[in-house]
Amino acid sequence: MAVYVFKFGGTSVGSTERIKAVADKVKQAHDQGHQIVVVVSAMSGETNRLIGLAKQMQVQPNEREMDVLLSTGEQVTVALLSMALHEMGCPACSYTGSQVKILTDNSHTKARIQEIDDKKIRADLMAGKVVVVAGFQGVDAAGNITTLGRGGSDTTAVALAAALNADECHIYTDVDGVYTTDPRVEPKARRLNKITFEEMLEMASLGSKVLQIRAVEFAGKYNVALRVLSSFEGGEGTLITYEESEMEKALISGIAFNRDEAKLTITGVPDVPGIASKILGPIAELNIEVDMIIQNVAEDATTDFTFTVHRNDFLKAKEILQKVSKELHAREVTGDDNIVKISIVGVGMRSHAGIASTMFKVLADEAINIIMISTSEIKISVVVDEKYLELAVRSLHATFNLEQEGYPLTL
Amino acid sequence: MAVYVFKFGGTSVGSTERIKAVADKVKQAHDQGHQIVVVVSAMSGETNRLIGLAKQMQVQPNEREMDVLLSTGEQVTVALLSMALHEMGCPACSYTGSQVKILTDNSHTKARIQEIDDKKIRADLMAGKVVVVAGFQGVDAAGNITTLGRGGSDTTAVALAAALNADECHIYTDVDGVYTTDPRVEPKARRLNKITFEEMLEMASLGSKVLQIRAVEFAGKYNVALRVLSSFEGGEGTLITYEESEMEKALISGIAFNRDEAKLTITGVPDVPGIASKILGPIAELNIEVDMIIQNVAEDATTDFTFTVHRNDFLKAKEILQKVSKELHAREVTGDDNIVKISIVGVGMRSHAGIASTMFKVLADEAINIIMISTSEIKISVVVDEKYLELAVRSLHATFNLEQEGYPLTL
Repeated sequence: MAVYVFKFGGTSVGSTERIKAVADKVKQAHDQGHQIVVVVSAMSGETNRLIGLAKQMQVQPNEREMDVLLSTGEQVTVALLSMALHEMGCPACSYTGSQVKILTDNSHTKARIQEIDDKKIRADLMAGKVVVVAGFQGVDAAGNITTLGRGGSDTTAVALAAALNADECHIYTDVDGVYTTDPRVEPKARRLNKITFEEMLEMASLGSKVLQIRAVEFAGKYNVALRVLSSFEGGEGTLITYEESEMEKALISGIAFNRDEAKLTITGVPDVPGIASKILGPIAELNIEVDMIIQNVAEDATTDFTFTVHRNDFLKAKEILQKVSKELHAREVTGDDNIVKISIVGVGMRSHAGIASTMFKVLADEAINIIMISTSEIKISVVVDEKYLELAVRSLHATFNLEQEGYPLTL
Repeated sequence: MAVYVFKFGGTSVGSTERIKAVADKVKQAHDQGHQIVVVVSAMSGETNRLIGLAKQMQVQPNEREMDVLLSTGEQVTVALLSMALHEMGCPACSYTGSQVKILTDNSHTKARIQEIDDKKIRADLMAGKVVVVAGFQGVDAAGNITTLGRGGSDTTAVALAAALNADECHIYTDVDGVYTTDPRVEPKARRLNKITFEEMLEMASLGSKVLQIRAVEFAGKYNVALRVLSSFEGGEGTLITYEESEMEKALISGIAFNRDEAKLTITGVPDVPGIASKILGPIAELNIEVDMIIQNVAEDATTDFTFTVHRNDFLKAKEILQKVSKELHAREVTGDDNIVKISIVGVGMRSHAGIASTMFKVLADEAINIIMISTSEIKISVVVDEKYLELAVRSLHATFNLEQEGYPLTL
């Protein structure tokens, strides 16, 4: 008998029929003698409907009240799922975040979990009940309803799994696992059986939006074995776990990419201390997130400074940068919003040299010009012209033999 | 400066526009320096939508989960109304029943309020905020969400008014007060400025569905001055309060009627002790509510027994009664579902004789045959053929001079 936390997202509970299908899956696991806690999101579309209502009331809706409003979405789902389980003769009991209670700080709309009281849940599990918990929400010390931000249901599930010391936390989604790259770009992309937390973090932050980053961090921190599976099909999914010896064979686990990037360069900047903050400060003030940052070695006392932003922020950032350029007496500001970032990710890089040079050679062989390069311990990212995206991903996928299980590549 | 509790029902908050109109009304009172607590229902249609979802999940939805589900309706409204108030620059804070907390027993879907913690509300009022409370809901001692049953928002408002010792509790609805009778039947019907709790109870239970009966009982018990007003029009509405000397002039306050009645008679029943329970027991077992009950004086050791039920239950009740009739060796079972009950209500009856005989004379003058009669201290009800409803109501309204303020009738 094992303890499992299952999490089903909005699409998986998007209709009464879907909720019944979820109940079916939960009941099967319960019938096998396992103790099951289910975390659910709002039915798909409901959160957006509520946000729409809020915006009709207030241009910038009050955040405390927004949390009161949005938390009803999951509350509806937990009640309906519990009813479906009752109808199948499976004892169940629902809880809101506040009822559990999932204590958070008081940062409305983006609260962080501080503590989970597991008493009621454990008592219900011991009594043979399935426990159905509203994801995404909690309560602060003063009793105000809080929410964890979009995708927060993943975090709820992982936090509950940690608190209950669950055997595994299953994140049911509309994909059947984590892939070596996006199958829409490379049809030979393969589902990974396992991936490490670190790799998953790099993959997720780079655009493979299967799991919320915070949930993966949380799972890594508390060593919760996380499994991504399909709500609709069968299969084992992908297990996200700590690095094991078996994994050391893997050089590269996957290829992530991000189409939403744009780059900005300011040239002829005086090469003096504090220049980076003078350039990026005004950008940050506008809440524009900066991704890659590259500063070249200075020549003739000036330097060139390049960074990437989300494509939606390109024009706004360029405008600011032109002002900054004048103040700094820089040479000029150039930009390009037709770029993509491609990254290869793998814990195997740590112990194997030559991965970067292999990557660059593959791109060179295809005559793909590399615009920017950035590396971390387990990831190498390049920025290239967006027209090369598919070609680059497929060439890298083939070279690193990602379509074959067991990572047979030897350099 | 006064403390008011305002309650707005589902129609009054049925759209974002309506919610803004409510916010406007609330802000006006707040701007005048009053302390305002607002109790709101779910947006009209929402409760039925949720019930529809529940029935898709479970034939007989689990009552605990039903309360979790339905309570989201008011939670949405309190958040939206608070946002609307914020947008107008009026400080506001929302509370669910559980947050307040409104402690109830654990009878899911029909819980009763046991205690209200007024600390948070008083603190907010002192801080100059409008407090917006979700009606219809509470929480039991174990932390389960409970609901008070349909119309329970009225009860929430009255209970809060009692707990806060409010100056008045305003129930905003789609009528502008309590009328001497239904204006659709008698266009001369007049809005009452005042009515006593007891009269209101008799009027409500007889079909003038302006206020929930339990709320009126509660208001009477805790001496909460209750005012029924229109959400959409202006006006003073009707104040429901204790009997005052001024009121003693009133003989009759109003005429209530009920079109949903049907009568059943069993004749030739042995006149022995326990016969009423033998007849009504099987009816009660089917959850059929019996309204008027009349047993005539026995002749030749048998008696006739007549009672009324809701018209929807007529056939079911008749079937049962025929079985009972055989067992008791009664003569026969007859029934009529083309009847109505008409009642005149007024605290003035207590001190004035002759009201009943006046009523009977009016009906006799119009050649209306009285089928059944039943009386209480402040009410006289008659059952007549339904074709006489309008004629009877208008004749009584005229005879008792109800269209004129000040109750000028002298008998």
